[in-house]
Amino acid sequence: MKKTDLLVIGGSAAGVTASLTARKYNKDASITVVRREKEVLVPCGIPYMYGTLPEPTKNIIPDNLLLSKNIEIVVDEVKSLNRDEKTVTLSKGEKIGYEKLILATGSIPAVPPIKGVDLKNVFTVRKELSYLLELMDALKKAKNVVVIGGGFIGVEFADEFTKRGLNVTIVELLPCCLQLAYDEEFCKIAEDKLVERGVKLKTNNRVEEIIGDGKVEKVRLSSGETLEADLVLIGVGVRPNVELAKNAGLKIGELGGIWVDEYMRTSDENIFAVGDCAEKYSFFTKKPSALRLASITAREARIAGVNVFGLKRKNIGVIGCFSTIIGDLALGVAGLTERAAKEAGFSFVVGRAKAPDKHPAAMPECKEMQIKLLFEKDSKILIGGQVAGGKTVGEVTNILSSLIEKKTTAEEVATFQYGTHPALTCSPISYQIAEAAEDALTKL
Amino acid sequence: MKKTDLLVIGGSAAGVTASLTARKYNKDASITVVRREKEVLVPCGIPYMYGTLPEPTKNIIPDNLLLSKNIEIVVDEVKSLNRDEKTVTLSKGEKIGYEKLILATGSIPAVPPIKGVDLKNVFTVRKELSYLLELMDALKKAKNVVVIGGGFIGVEFADEFTKRGLNVTIVELLPCCLQLAYDEEFCKIAEDKLVERGVKLKTNNRVEEIIGDGKVEKVRLSSGETLEADLVLIGVGVRPNVELAKNAGLKIGELGGIWVDEYMRTSDENIFAVGDCAEKYSFFTKKPSALRLASITAREARIAGVNVFGLKRKNIGVIGCFSTIIGDLALGVAGLTERAAKEAGFSFVVGRAKAPDKHPAAMPECKEMQIKLLFEKDSKILIGGQVAGGKTVGEVTNILSSLIEKKTTAEEVATFQYGTHPALTCSPISYQIAEAAEDALTKL
Repeated sequence: MKKTDLLVIGGSAAGVTASLTARKYNKDASITVVRREKEVLVPCGIPYMYGTLPEPTKNIIPDNLLLSKNIEIVVDEVKSLNRDEKTVTLSKGEKIGYEKLILATGSIPAVPPIKGVDLKNVFTVRKELSYLLELMDALKKAKNVVVIGGGFIGVEFADEFTKRGLNVTIVELLPCCLQLAYDEEFCKIAEDKLVERGVKLKTNNRVEEIIGDGKVEKVRLSSGETLEADLVLIGVGVRPNVELAKNAGLKIGELGGIWVDEYMRTSDENIFAVGDCAEKYSFFTKKPSALRLASITAREARIAGVNVFGLKRKNIGVIGCFSTIIGDLALGVAGLTERAAKEAGFSFVVGRAKAPDKHPAAMPECKEMQIKLLFEKDSKILIGGQVAGGKTVGEVTNILSSLIEKKTTAEEVATFQYGTHPALTCSPISYQIAEAAEDALTKL
Repeated sequence: MKKTDLLVIGGSAAGVTASLTARKYNKDASITVVRREKEVLVPCGIPYMYGTLPEPTKNIIPDNLLLSKNIEIVVDEVKSLNRDEKTVTLSKGEKIGYEKLILATGSIPAVPPIKGVDLKNVFTVRKELSYLLELMDALKKAKNVVVIGGGFIGVEFADEFTKRGLNVTIVELLPCCLQLAYDEEFCKIAEDKLVERGVKLKTNNRVEEIIGDGKVEKVRLSSGETLEADLVLIGVGVRPNVELAKNAGLKIGELGGIWVDEYMRTSDENIFAVGDCAEKYSFFTKKPSALRLASITAREARIAGVNVFGLKRKNIGVIGCFSTIIGDLALGVAGLTERAAKEAGFSFVVGRAKAPDKHPAAMPECKEMQIKLLFEKDSKILIGGQVAGGKTVGEVTNILSSLIEKKTTAEEVATFQYGTHPALTCSPISYQIAEAAEDALTKL
């Protein structure tokens, strides 16, 4: 029987980062990654296979990332896990023994119980190249596309589909697209941009039935309206893939992920779990969190990858930091929105600022960038921020996340030591993060 | 005699930010800005008047920024300051009385004692529109330009001049351009890009004489070489403009700026000084620092603008965070370089990372971004970072600055909660800041 010091199950962002991190701190251990997929997709890049990338096959994580670090890759499916024996069994009965195990089994797209969901040309977002190439083929013949779900995945796919000249409609249950990520005014900015890009929005609405003879032809909404559709894409979220863990008797968390402690250990101290399959906890409330992001995954993998050979790193819980782009409008969020802060029971003050993202405003490619910050009322500590603007929004959101993580007060944010350059940032006078903090301070 | 609650002398980034900040926290005070210039230039935008901005007159800070906040602007020169009377005297003898005074008198371009420096078509970087328009006129007739000084200003002007098809040579005393800002390997990246852009570099070299009959024709270097030149631009730094303060008996600091305490007060408690005219102190060593940047200015102005009506904010000293761009290559630095860290007596460990700044690398506009981080050896706290890459470098450098300011350890940097997006950032697996911290940790 093959034996390995560290076995990682799953070869996407979680498995790759966990095994690479483990290797950095342990040159001699044998490390093996078992994964189902022949090629591993860049998970966040999947929408961009359909309108932006030169070819869909460019969205692959190269195996050499692991192979060059002497990490073995086994392409196979793990059928069962025997914790007493410390072995896993592969599809043909072969076993691999482990000293330490990291579960990075990811998530599975949720499929809502809609009549007609099994018709041809109804797709979810499965992270499998062959399936995603089928979607590509179907798209090439499609004209009218309905996207079910107006979260990040739905919005990003819809925007990409417009680049193919398709007639795209998003159907969203909530009053706004992206409503779980942003406060209303930022959702509105996003929705205006989607409409400008030609996407039709059916919010406060649900798909009651997908209609067709063998393959999808129409979609009937709760509003009574019927839409022509030759392709339906479902992006209504994911559920953690915990079957293997569950069958092995590992504890499952309140929100359905594999329970983990602050060291990313499962209820078995030789087994860690990271990424979409693992339960998450909020940085702010320490309660279970439904956030699932590749960046959270990578961070958990960096924690587990070190701890697997000796507990060193603690998980302080997820802040939630992410960004997206619709056309030329980028949107980012770090930490709590107003809605989330209220739900969590925080009293807070809001500060806002808006200014060009270059200076002077006549610089090429200059866009307006606006920022909204939330500070806890008593401590004056930053607990959340939202950003809308041009292509620097992703990293600006990361500044906010670092300030949140380090529990920075409004006074400190107002005078934080940013640098500025005409072609790269807002002006020093109007730098939005500092100005939004000043705005909040005048109300605190 | 006119009286004002707060008088601000100087109308550039320092004066504007100080008066705007004061207004935010005091709606009722009378605030007056006295400045010499009819129009105020965006200081960092000055190089971009010559190759990037549609017209040089687009590089103006609009007066309405102040006027809309009920801040009065007086265009005149302050000739003297009487601290006992608490008055200043303007050019025609008119006086203004003040309760509190903020000196924001800026800096003056240094002029090296070179023979021929007074010839026609030899320019410095004066922040005066009419003078800068003269430079523009001279450029239109020029073919061969010599830039004296390979610091930020010299490099930015040289790069802009190449956009006009000019034959540009930089003459720099030190072995590398930008050597006071970056470590050697980053200077090399910058120099390679300058050369690629057609700029000729004469480093380890000095201008011995500017030669010409009335106007510049040639430049003789210490290497013996003589260069054709119909225009010379001098960018060898600035000296603080402290004449008014000196004449009024205010204490001057070790490096020639107006001495200030941690509240930005001068030796007269009713008088504050901010920006280029004020002495700076290092965040790391608390010793005087020669750094002068518009972003430091703005921060000091945010401190003084609040403190002027009651001491609240403290200046913790300058980290030094700045960025620039040469062609499509952006470079940023926050905190200490290796050279500066050694000089200050720190023991440190270096971590490096390099990865595409979008993901997958086939995303449009993707560039490689590399990061170098310095961590203090015992505490493992981040003390410096350098970045080279695409247009997100400015904000990535600001992330580093925020992490430095909050005394973040290598472990914390490695697991800091960044967000990622294919079109906006590096991949979660390879995110350079975290990876550079991991690299350092493997050596700590």
